[in-house]
Amino acid sequence: MTAPDRGFPTAEYAGRTARAQAAMARAGMAGLLLTTEPEVRYFSGFHTLFWQSPTRPWFLFLPASGRPVAVIPEIGAALMRRTWIEDIRSWSAPAPGDDGISLLTELLSPLAERRETLGVMKGPETHLRMPLGDYERLVSGLGGLRIADATGLVRGLRMVKSEAEIAKIAHVCAIGSRVFARVPEIAREGQPLDALFRAVRREALAQGADDMPYLVGGAEAGGYRDVISPPSDRALARGDVLMLDFGACRDGYFCDFDRNFAIGEADDAARRAYDVLWRATEAGRAAARPGTPCRELFRVMQAVIGAPDDHGGAVGRLGHGLGLQLTEWPSLAAWEETEITENMVLTLEPSLAYGAGRVMVHEENIVVRTGGADLLTDRAAPDLPVI
Amino acid sequence: MTAPDRGFPTAEYAGRTARAQAAMARAGMAGLLLTTEPEVRYFSGFHTLFWQSPTRPWFLFLPASGRPVAVIPEIGAALMRRTWIEDIRSWSAPAPGDDGISLLTELLSPLAERRETLGVMKGPETHLRMPLGDYERLVSGLGGLRIADATGLVRGLRMVKSEAEIAKIAHVCAIGSRVFARVPEIAREGQPLDALFRAVRREALAQGADDMPYLVGGAEAGGYRDVISPPSDRALARGDVLMLDFGACRDGYFCDFDRNFAIGEADDAARRAYDVLWRATEAGRAAARPGTPCRELFRVMQAVIGAPDDHGGAVGRLGHGLGLQLTEWPSLAAWEETEITENMVLTLEPSLAYGAGRVMVHEENIVVRTGGADLLTDRAAPDLPVI
Repeated sequence: MTAPDRGFPTAEYAGRTARAQAAMARAGMAGLLLTTEPEVRYFSGFHTLFWQSPTRPWFLFLPASGRPVAVIPEIGAALMRRTWIEDIRSWSAPAPGDDGISLLTELLSPLAERRETLGVMKGPETHLRMPLGDYERLVSGLGGLRIADATGLVRGLRMVKSEAEIAKIAHVCAIGSRVFARVPEIAREGQPLDALFRAVRREALAQGADDMPYLVGGAEAGGYRDVISPPSDRALARGDVLMLDFGACRDGYFCDFDRNFAIGEADDAARRAYDVLWRATEAGRAAARPGTPCRELFRVMQAVIGAPDDHGGAVGRLGHGLGLQLTEWPSLAAWEETEITENMVLTLEPSLAYGAGRVMVHEENIVVRTGGADLLTDRAAPDLPVI
Repeated sequence: MTAPDRGFPTAEYAGRTARAQAAMARAGMAGLLLTTEPEVRYFSGFHTLFWQSPTRPWFLFLPASGRPVAVIPEIGAALMRRTWIEDIRSWSAPAPGDDGISLLTELLSPLAERRETLGVMKGPETHLRMPLGDYERLVSGLGGLRIADATGLVRGLRMVKSEAEIAKIAHVCAIGSRVFARVPEIAREGQPLDALFRAVRREALAQGADDMPYLVGGAEAGGYRDVISPPSDRALARGDVLMLDFGACRDGYFCDFDRNFAIGEADDAARRAYDVLWRATEAGRAAARPGTPCRELFRVMQAVIGAPDDHGGAVGRLGHGLGLQLTEWPSLAAWEETEITENMVLTLEPSLAYGAGRVMVHEENIVVRTGGADLLTDRAAPDLPVI
């Protein structure tokens, strides 16, 4: 399998920016100030793990027309110059007294003088990736500037993937499928769970992933009890249900799916839970078509799972968007009115509680096309696999 | 080498909380609201990779006395119940209409009624890990509540490590040193840089790291040009200077250091740059004693490096704190007045520019003891190693 070329041609970023600017014009926004890694990367192509250091803020400003403007620490200027961004303003960071704030003030003053509106992401699933005190000082120093929430605008763009993005996600999903296919050879009774996690990460790298930043799971007799834990050093034992849920990435795009395995043998309760979730996923696949509201996708999966139980509440949804981030908008949830459109990439992630405090999750990744959902992951076996 | 036990005894969290509460009393704060992963983990022990999903906010409230209160999505309640936290309030998240805000309002209303002060981290190297719109609604709904910046308070606690923390950092630094010791066997002329990165990550897992979330570097003829890039697929060639800079973690604590290698041969400029940085690090080690201001540590390293050049500005500092995060306060910078104290864990990270746009970085990790600095990393060779 040939890996897609890394990065995107400039036309990809130009198209994203033009679509954002058209939406900004409709929303009456004179600019957009972005502080978070996925958004900065989405519009500029600036791709570095350096965001893991919380020390320095990074800013991208989308004007009403023209290319975005980067306001960034000098340590990133060389890398930013390799993107399509031309206007790069940098300062020697960290500088707690003025970490980009005077540069931003200069950039945004014309908007403030004209009493225009700046879009800032303030809504669900966002955060402010700069010191709150600096944000407050910036805004109060720009008298006249109006702030509007740009979450919906950015969400609308990012939810619908380009063919080039879909190719990247499909590629990393295929890597993930190959990793799961190897689990029956990697996992064995008596193996500590943390050693298995390490082996799965090593396998992902061997299969071509750049990294596997997310790996959670559990293994307990008859079923696991929570789905977000780091691994213990408890050895896998006969009768365990093992779940692995990972997000691997390549070239900045994620897969996110899980698989369940029984160690040695599975009891009827676990087999039944697995069967319900497998069928709920089939129902979700069949319903995932352009025009279907997300809440309807939730409903058809929940109808297979049965009455909502305590656990249905715990996870809070039965799937979500996928792309630059492990989880993205929209949610497959009872409250989500967003309509599914062509070229959305989604996870179908039904879950249920059974027995005494056991839970089970099941997850696949799909892309929605005109005719319906295409699987990006190799479909899980219809019966709980026994290792 | 025996790995330290995972997690900490309750006494560790109780001590951290008591110290925070003493500082809160001095600062006139009736409570502390925390939204970021390192802080929530520092006071509660709640440890999960689930923070990588941006969907759900997580809150920890430190009252003036007693244990912290967790206000968290239900999906994390089972894991939080395994910590020392007793008061766990949860909701079915995501719930864009009310993602914990009514629970927080209920919790914080008594403070607002008494016109008390809530500490929130708003200062350098922090961010608000919840939707800004929700924060603004929360605060405006709590008329009477005063907000104060708690960055200094939390920074003061986190900068000084306990013996149990130091043992964890020392352990992961030793893992990192073993990984670098293997690089001359792993790296070879003709190997694409991205393949080498994958091999280094696999080695880290084999050596006992839970993960290597951070890995950057470069390799170019005579020297690399930037220090935060992801790898290209260019093959290592004779005459390259290769730099690898990684943050591996085990049990939630990081190492963060780098190493330089010449492929086949090194030119004089690269050898000289390496020698300067090696000696700058020695000067930093010798100066790192309790009572020394950070800016003095910067000064002694910079004195070896020579006149500040363009690159000195680019990196912005010559080292930083290390622990729960890849980079933490304090900075080794000209503006940093913080005094070094016993049990700070620091990186010494001198850098310089040479030749035509080449840069070089050099990094070690130390813990400061009464008598001076102890190395946590196996000291880099005094001369640029040739592979």
